[in-house]
Amino acid sequence: MVQTIDQRSLPFEFKIVDLKNIEDIFVAIRDMVVRGAPLIGAAAALGIYLEILRIADKADFINLLRNAGEYLKSSRPTAVNISFAVDYLIQSLLHIEHPAQRIRVAHDKAMLIVNNEKENCRRIGEHGLPLIEEISRSKDGMPVNILTHCNAGWLACVDYGTATAPIYLAHDKGIKVHVWVDETRPRNQGARLTAFELGQHGVPYTVIVDNAGGHLMQHGLVDMVLVGSDRTTANGDVANKIGTYLKALAAHDNNVPFYVALPSSSIDWNLTDGITQIPIEERSADEIYYMEGKKGSAIEQIQILPDNTPVVNYGFDVTPARLVTGLITERGICKADALSIKKLFNK
Amino acid sequence: MVQTIDQRSLPFEFKIVDLKNIEDIFVAIRDMVVRGAPLIGAAAALGIYLEILRIADKADFINLLRNAGEYLKSSRPTAVNISFAVDYLIQSLLHIEHPAQRIRVAHDKAMLIVNNEKENCRRIGEHGLPLIEEISRSKDGMPVNILTHCNAGWLACVDYGTATAPIYLAHDKGIKVHVWVDETRPRNQGARLTAFELGQHGVPYTVIVDNAGGHLMQHGLVDMVLVGSDRTTANGDVANKIGTYLKALAAHDNNVPFYVALPSSSIDWNLTDGITQIPIEERSADEIYYMEGKKGSAIEQIQILPDNTPVVNYGFDVTPARLVTGLITERGICKADALSIKKLFNK
Repeated sequence: MVQTIDQRSLPFEFKIVDLKNIEDIFVAIRDMVVRGAPLIGAAAALGIYLEILRIADKADFINLLRNAGEYLKSSRPTAVNISFAVDYLIQSLLHIEHPAQRIRVAHDKAMLIVNNEKENCRRIGEHGLPLIEEISRSKDGMPVNILTHCNAGWLACVDYGTATAPIYLAHDKGIKVHVWVDETRPRNQGARLTAFELGQHGVPYTVIVDNAGGHLMQHGLVDMVLVGSDRTTANGDVANKIGTYLKALAAHDNNVPFYVALPSSSIDWNLTDGITQIPIEERSADEIYYMEGKKGSAIEQIQILPDNTPVVNYGFDVTPARLVTGLITERGICKADALSIKKLFNK
Repeated sequence: MVQTIDQRSLPFEFKIVDLKNIEDIFVAIRDMVVRGAPLIGAAAALGIYLEILRIADKADFINLLRNAGEYLKSSRPTAVNISFAVDYLIQSLLHIEHPAQRIRVAHDKAMLIVNNEKENCRRIGEHGLPLIEEISRSKDGMPVNILTHCNAGWLACVDYGTATAPIYLAHDKGIKVHVWVDETRPRNQGARLTAFELGQHGVPYTVIVDNAGGHLMQHGLVDMVLVGSDRTTANGDVANKIGTYLKALAAHDNNVPFYVALPSSSIDWNLTDGITQIPIEERSADEIYYMEGKKGSAIEQIQILPDNTPVVNYGFDVTPARLVTGLITERGICKADALSIKKLFNK
């Protein structure tokens, strides 16, 4: 059994849910009980492991295994981490015939992915830290203002987070940082999750609406933009939460560095044009129709649009590599271009 | 007495409120019972008229009149229409000594402003219409997709609206249009007011979150961006609802024409640098903390952030003239530069 925090009820309630089988994992990913590219990769790996417990001794093991993989990949289309994790487990299991060994390998490989994601985030933090330190030195005791969009924190990533890892390390080292947290409509992951995380860790932050970042940058109130990625192409185009592209444009227009923090499990080596090649998830209209919050001590949901208002709800957008100052990965920092990425990962 | 729609309760309730004196007008502008640059200009003119009814026969008339003007100007700092209307009325009244004549002039001049705003919006519609017609001709029967931010419709402008005026005229002429309506956080004027207006008029529309526009433009789903303005400098910089600048950047990056519709009462002839010179209103944190909507048949407000979350709430941002394709005014369309604007208005 796998246990996880139900991110849908944060920050108003802290609930732990049990995921007992691959169907539970599928639903948890689709409904965003778990979310964040690295975390859904780790969850998918554990989903394969839970399924192996059921199918390890079946005659048509290989078929069942492949079906399990396709099933999990269909839970969310944009992040590549699910494919990465699932394909890695399938490759590891294809040529193993003994049921008990299948279970052991699935367990070990799934845990390897979980631990790698954690270790990669720690390394991203270490590689990103000097960027913040350098800005801090030029600010004469004033805090480094970092704008982030959505949640690329430990909630999204087993531990540390991607975009937040350098921020946590800087804060722990006594460097003054302050984070502008984009509310991140429609699901408000910034206001609900990133604010919660930063608050728990004691990092100063201010929540803003998604519309505000450009104004802040025009007035010198942002030193750096730091976001995560759900899928990065081999040439450095970045799919991330819808609205990221708008912040990248504003950063570019105001000479604010725009960094993307990602483990290599988020790189899709097969793609070279993010805008035409990365599938962008369309999610339920309900995410725009309804809003959840506190009414006295109760948690309530209200409808914020009149009945039958037509809406569309795209989950992600693609920031072209030309707008990205650099990628912060577990191997170090590189420019967002095919050659630099290849070189860093010896591909 | 002045009567107006309480825009705060739309689209869930349609309420008419009475404004009996200048204090009622002040509160209605500050609390956004009335909103939209042309409408708050018209409301301010009527506020001066209501005050004249009280002070017309006072000995220190001139002082009281000037105080009334300063009082109304302090209700909202960014839109210039209040200053325009108030200064026009004061100028008209300074040299009139007979109380009854003061009342008559104040009434006539206030109504002139109200009617001018309405007539100017109609003309903006006529001048903007050919832009939509031209795009329509190239689309082979497919609808012209127009993205708008906030509400620059008839609710904001006595009648017709600024940004919406060409859209209504096009629709009435049988040209196929479809409007992408930005939700417009934090007060959701797009989702609540623009959607309501367009729906009433029968214009097809789709509500999107403010984060979505860039993605739509990258995929060729926007033919034109059309917004209003709360203050435009003599060189064409445009202050409008926070987030407008981000849409202008995306339009520029994707070669989508970006037009601003405004009556000349929104032009501040004294300013030449919007980013440094236009005061940007900071509004209450409550606008980000709370959200209003339907719960069954009741209207409820919920708190969408945990207690004590730090927030800031800027009301507007400035789109530099270089990102503006053109200004649509009551005199015609011109480029967003000092010379073109001057020429159009014979200044």
